[in-house]
Amino acid sequence: MATTWVPDVSPASPFSLANIPFGIITTQDDPTPRAATAIGSHVLDLKALSQSRSLIDGGDQDHVFSQPTLNDFAALGRPVHRQVRQLLQDILAVDTKYADVLKDNESLRQKALIPQSKVKLHLPMRVGDYTDFYAGYNHAYNVGVLFRGPANALQPNYTHLPVGYHGRASSIVVSGTPVPRPWGQILLDPTAEPKQPTTAPCRRLDFELELGCFISKSNSLGDPIKVDNAEEHIFGYVLLNDWSARDIQAWEYVPLGPFNSKNFASTISPWVVLADALEPFRTTGIENKAPRQDYLSESQTETAFDIKLEIDLTTPEGDTTTISKTSSKNLMWSFPQMIAHHTLGGCNLNTGDLLGSGTISGLEPSERGSLLEMNEGGKKDIMIAGMNVRKFLKDGDTITMRGVCGNDGAKVGFGDCRGTILTAIQR
Amino acid sequence: MATTWVPDVSPASPFSLANIPFGIITTQDDPTPRAATAIGSHVLDLKALSQSRSLIDGGDQDHVFSQPTLNDFAALGRPVHRQVRQLLQDILAVDTKYADVLKDNESLRQKALIPQSKVKLHLPMRVGDYTDFYAGYNHAYNVGVLFRGPANALQPNYTHLPVGYHGRASSIVVSGTPVPRPWGQILLDPTAEPKQPTTAPCRRLDFELELGCFISKSNSLGDPIKVDNAEEHIFGYVLLNDWSARDIQAWEYVPLGPFNSKNFASTISPWVVLADALEPFRTTGIENKAPRQDYLSESQTETAFDIKLEIDLTTPEGDTTTISKTSSKNLMWSFPQMIAHHTLGGCNLNTGDLLGSGTISGLEPSERGSLLEMNEGGKKDIMIAGMNVRKFLKDGDTITMRGVCGNDGAKVGFGDCRGTILTAIQR
Repeated sequence: MATTWVPDVSPASPFSLANIPFGIITTQDDPTPRAATAIGSHVLDLKALSQSRSLIDGGDQDHVFSQPTLNDFAALGRPVHRQVRQLLQDILAVDTKYADVLKDNESLRQKALIPQSKVKLHLPMRVGDYTDFYAGYNHAYNVGVLFRGPANALQPNYTHLPVGYHGRASSIVVSGTPVPRPWGQILLDPTAEPKQPTTAPCRRLDFELELGCFISKSNSLGDPIKVDNAEEHIFGYVLLNDWSARDIQAWEYVPLGPFNSKNFASTISPWVVLADALEPFRTTGIENKAPRQDYLSESQTETAFDIKLEIDLTTPEGDTTTISKTSSKNLMWSFPQMIAHHTLGGCNLNTGDLLGSGTISGLEPSERGSLLEMNEGGKKDIMIAGMNVRKFLKDGDTITMRGVCGNDGAKVGFGDCRGTILTAIQR
Repeated sequence: MATTWVPDVSPASPFSLANIPFGIITTQDDPTPRAATAIGSHVLDLKALSQSRSLIDGGDQDHVFSQPTLNDFAALGRPVHRQVRQLLQDILAVDTKYADVLKDNESLRQKALIPQSKVKLHLPMRVGDYTDFYAGYNHAYNVGVLFRGPANALQPNYTHLPVGYHGRASSIVVSGTPVPRPWGQILLDPTAEPKQPTTAPCRRLDFELELGCFISKSNSLGDPIKVDNAEEHIFGYVLLNDWSARDIQAWEYVPLGPFNSKNFASTISPWVVLADALEPFRTTGIENKAPRQDYLSESQTETAFDIKLEIDLTTPEGDTTTISKTSSKNLMWSFPQMIAHHTLGGCNLNTGDLLGSGTISGLEPSERGSLLEMNEGGKKDIMIAGMNVRKFLKDGDTITMRGVCGNDGAKVGFGDCRGTILTAIQR
């Protein structure tokens, strides 16, 4: 991979020339939300750039970079995303043949190449529907053991279909947005009969480490997407923290699934990493030995990505501990399989719809994607820095998720997916 | 209630002067979607009317009637909806003091007062998130018995909180839209071990009779809506058919709830009946003897509506049978309680969000809101006209739901919520 002429690009940056993610920015000078890419410690304003030089072949679609979300860009389809990423890589390369466009154009450079510290990042997409799957086999097994015992940890359907449920789109927030501790109905004594709930702030507040996938091209109602065509409907990926209130969840989730335990907030990382940028990091996911239904059989075998994932917990006092290191390959179902299953009955996916992978956990205790697994159902203290322990999150705790692939100088990463817990909302 | 000068208003019409529902129309002459109300067998084009005479106090908000959905009108809040409905009733009354506006203005009447037969009705709202509750106690009990036996029919949480789940917004369609039979994973022999599903068209296709509620004013993330303020956030009501694939549902729904068994289509009636129009038909719902959490305690006691509901099944041969007659008062939780619970943890509801009541069934066999209850879990034939029987829906069957309150000449109703089953989608 070539290097870039842009200054101050650390070899460790997740935003190398190999990445070129897309996001939505505002600045103090220009509070209008607009599209940008990230390169090292800078962002490149694509509205400004495209007003000087068309970025999309054909020349009449560049208005998509002036929109307040990436939806219109996403809807143009994967060949266009690929072409724009390639052109941006060419413009930013040290040996660029487009030096006049930006490298040698000082006035545009001053305007369009902005230090990240001067930029506010926004939700990159307007999310229509949000669906959360449960494809992290190790997490599903670990949590199943805690809720239902080892004999019934996984339902018989688990290996036959990508289990998923409809999530809440309105409360998806961008990294950095604080998350007030939710109130809810909880059973203080789950063994007492008759069961009598209390309404109180959540006492078992947790996170879930997930990969999120944004839909580009929609399908019509009644027109399923075939598994081998599904990648043409994928725009790109973000990190997703599916905050979970475990005490609220335990009481509410039978028989129709999680509701208030999840819908108070879900945090995503601000940059959408294009599917193409992750191509070099394909690998196999968790093996599924069950007979596969035809509509879920893929030609491709390497359908997962090996993204190195880390979770930091920072206490209110400022002590940070990396509490988990795992990989996004710990999924038993691929996003194309999720898409094929989601649309099997004719359901339409729209541009901007978000699919969550389900919580990603490795096999080892150090690789778990939620506190519930680390504390073994609330029984075990988790040791953290500053002589502290946690079972669940305290007010003022910050969870930061990071994901990155590749070697120094050519890293492809997401930037932080971060949220700080505030004291319970006033009622 | 006064009568109207509009011709051809049958005393049996659900669209009397007491109603004044809101919808979105197009006509052959003008294919631009726009707002309208219904009066007898006519619709009144509110874009055309408001361009001649402002309908909203203040005079600078009438552009909402030129939008392709009612969202902007809904967002103005309940006092505005009330004022507009009152003004339209005054304009349409036989003794109107606004005769010059429409009654005596022949050219505007020709343009704005259109026979329903010449109008195409569209989805009235752009739905952000759709949440389906389960407040129909009799249905929840009947179905619980079939799925889990009488001892576990209802979970311990049922009487403590309005159980609900996030539904699929993208596949909500307006009455008249055909519904292709979905494919899905089903267990042909649920008793065989190991369990081995088949991918096939649904064999147990059902409907669910529900009342839908549209949100007007949004709340901010982290700012719960109190139960006694919830009615200020309600725009109005529609009938909702939550089509359900029972064989797909049985295999997929544990542990995260219904997914593909519901997301292929949900049908709503085209006219939004304002909350104010239903005020005279308040009544008590199903009594809940469990201790009530404070946030669910209402000052108001009459929190249900007595809307007479009917379901017709029409065979492909054209024989129609009314297979159920019930009332919307058969709910144990009110919409204000659903709203208070939904937002308890801080979840934000947006203008256009749709809440479903859950299936409405009375106590008697003739009052059931789904085939699953009528056929007792697929065991019993349902007798219909034309010497036919049904357990579940056949291709070409049409389900029509109707709902109406009040006496002849002053009826408040919804119009049809109708869908015809097409043969399974091609794969």
